[in-house]
Amino acid sequence: MKLTILGCYAATPRTITNPTSQVLEIRNRLFLIDCGEGTQVQLRKNKIKFSKINHIFISHLHGDHLYGLIGTISTFSLLGRTTDLHIYGPKGIKELILLQLKLTESWTTYKLFFHELESKESEVIFEDNKVIVKTIPLKHRVYTNGFLFQEKPGDRKLNVEAVQQYNIHTAYFQKIKGGGDVTLDDGTVIKNKELSFDPIPSMSYAFCSDTVYHEDVLPIIKDVDVLYHESTFLESEAALALKTLHSTAKEAATIALKANAKKLILGHYSTRYDGIERFKEEAETIFPNTLLGDDGRSFEF
Amino acid sequence: MKLTILGCYAATPRTITNPTSQVLEIRNRLFLIDCGEGTQVQLRKNKIKFSKINHIFISHLHGDHLYGLIGTISTFSLLGRTTDLHIYGPKGIKELILLQLKLTESWTTYKLFFHELESKESEVIFEDNKVIVKTIPLKHRVYTNGFLFQEKPGDRKLNVEAVQQYNIHTAYFQKIKGGGDVTLDDGTVIKNKELSFDPIPSMSYAFCSDTVYHEDVLPIIKDVDVLYHESTFLESEAALALKTLHSTAKEAATIALKANAKKLILGHYSTRYDGIERFKEEAETIFPNTLLGDDGRSFEF
Repeated sequence: MKLTILGCYAATPRTITNPTSQVLEIRNRLFLIDCGEGTQVQLRKNKIKFSKINHIFISHLHGDHLYGLIGTISTFSLLGRTTDLHIYGPKGIKELILLQLKLTESWTTYKLFFHELESKESEVIFEDNKVIVKTIPLKHRVYTNGFLFQEKPGDRKLNVEAVQQYNIHTAYFQKIKGGGDVTLDDGTVIKNKELSFDPIPSMSYAFCSDTVYHEDVLPIIKDVDVLYHESTFLESEAALALKTLHSTAKEAATIALKANAKKLILGHYSTRYDGIERFKEEAETIFPNTLLGDDGRSFEF
Repeated sequence: MKLTILGCYAATPRTITNPTSQVLEIRNRLFLIDCGEGTQVQLRKNKIKFSKINHIFISHLHGDHLYGLIGTISTFSLLGRTTDLHIYGPKGIKELILLQLKLTESWTTYKLFFHELESKESEVIFEDNKVIVKTIPLKHRVYTNGFLFQEKPGDRKLNVEAVQQYNIHTAYFQKIKGGGDVTLDDGTVIKNKELSFDPIPSMSYAFCSDTVYHEDVLPIIKDVDVLYHESTFLESEAALALKTLHSTAKEAATIALKANAKKLILGHYSTRYDGIERFKEEAETIFPNTLLGDDGRSFEF
């Protein structure tokens, strides 16, 4: 699982910082999460292949998470894309994109599917044989979802030695990988645990931006491997965080701790501060395993 | 008169090139012309004060001239702007911006005025005491206007020596600056030319992008001081230029020559070529006084 932060600063794009966008590579799938202005250039800078992106998730309809989407969609067309593209985002996103395509007399060279979200409960919005994606309802000034990406557990690994020892026919191998026991010709039942090993642990990643401190997310992201949680402010601006429905670094760390996350990545920093090291210092007082997101930074898990 | 090219490459924004946008400073007014994705960052890079931009002119509703507008409008708001902002562009631009503001539940901290264009004839769209702006109808795949920015002629300069010699009262000075003659007490008429000098010549700038080679523009831009004309292609791609309704460098130069322009600036280069020097070489065979536009390049006239 590899996460590439294309942008993780709040509000307006600047010369040296970019609004929110990131790419999650999980089980060889590439998911684009949020799409602030300039995302397509950030994709190029980070050498992400446009053609591998088939699913784009938009957390909420605020410009710093959205205004790069129409340009990205258009550029995919200019490059002659033919593969379907799926967009997941709040209700309204379809009208917003389609009106722009219509008024610019543009069309896409590929099929564009919109999956508009309006539920206030967590729901599965994507699933294939290897990955499942669920929404994480957040609390912000507009309707907002985070996203939980989970690898599905793979097959159990065959214990080749044990299988040979019991002289089990290959016809049973798939059953064993699936967790099933085997009954020998003499009626003896061999428990699956004797014949297989646990599968490679499946990883999970939770993206939570933008949101005020919101404990309702805890059951959804419980035990997550990697949590990205917004930390627009430091505790010194806790009142402002509450007013604007954003979080502080300390609050992000508290969510990570209470959710029993393994790692926390911070982001969505207000540009009012000089440097971002203080976000890490503040979060680490609560949750030591904290990493600093930054534009162009990649994390492999 | 100062022109700053924020971006002048065709189609998609890339790591090192930007789509169309430029800033014209004329008689202490700042006009933003076109607004491709990333314009607000280019404004910052080129140290253009956001607060000095009160008028934005959009040539046509194609993404590479437009997709940075909503972000720019939003950022102006985030910075607390209160001054009116005027947007000039094809019919539809108002709906496009207002829907985005509505769906993102945003509002502007300042008044936003839309001046929607749909005339196929050149028309005056802005005028104050120092500058006049007219449309230049162009021929492209969608409804497109270039823009002609003209300084108004200033007052004639008083010939102080002559005025003293004739002992003319200060009450007549404004009349003389305006071009009027003066009748002395004895009935003698003193011609204005004896009492004043010509005003500082007024400058003009014509922006022509995107367009196929189109001689209809010639009477509108006749004798222009500086002509920016798109040159998406070289003559080797003349057929493609015609098909996509763009121009070649040679065609841009031909327009400059026939319009009796003083200077030509090229831009809107296709990114298919290695470097842009060949555009200049090609144009100079027709029109020697050719300058190469490039991102971040400024010209003073």
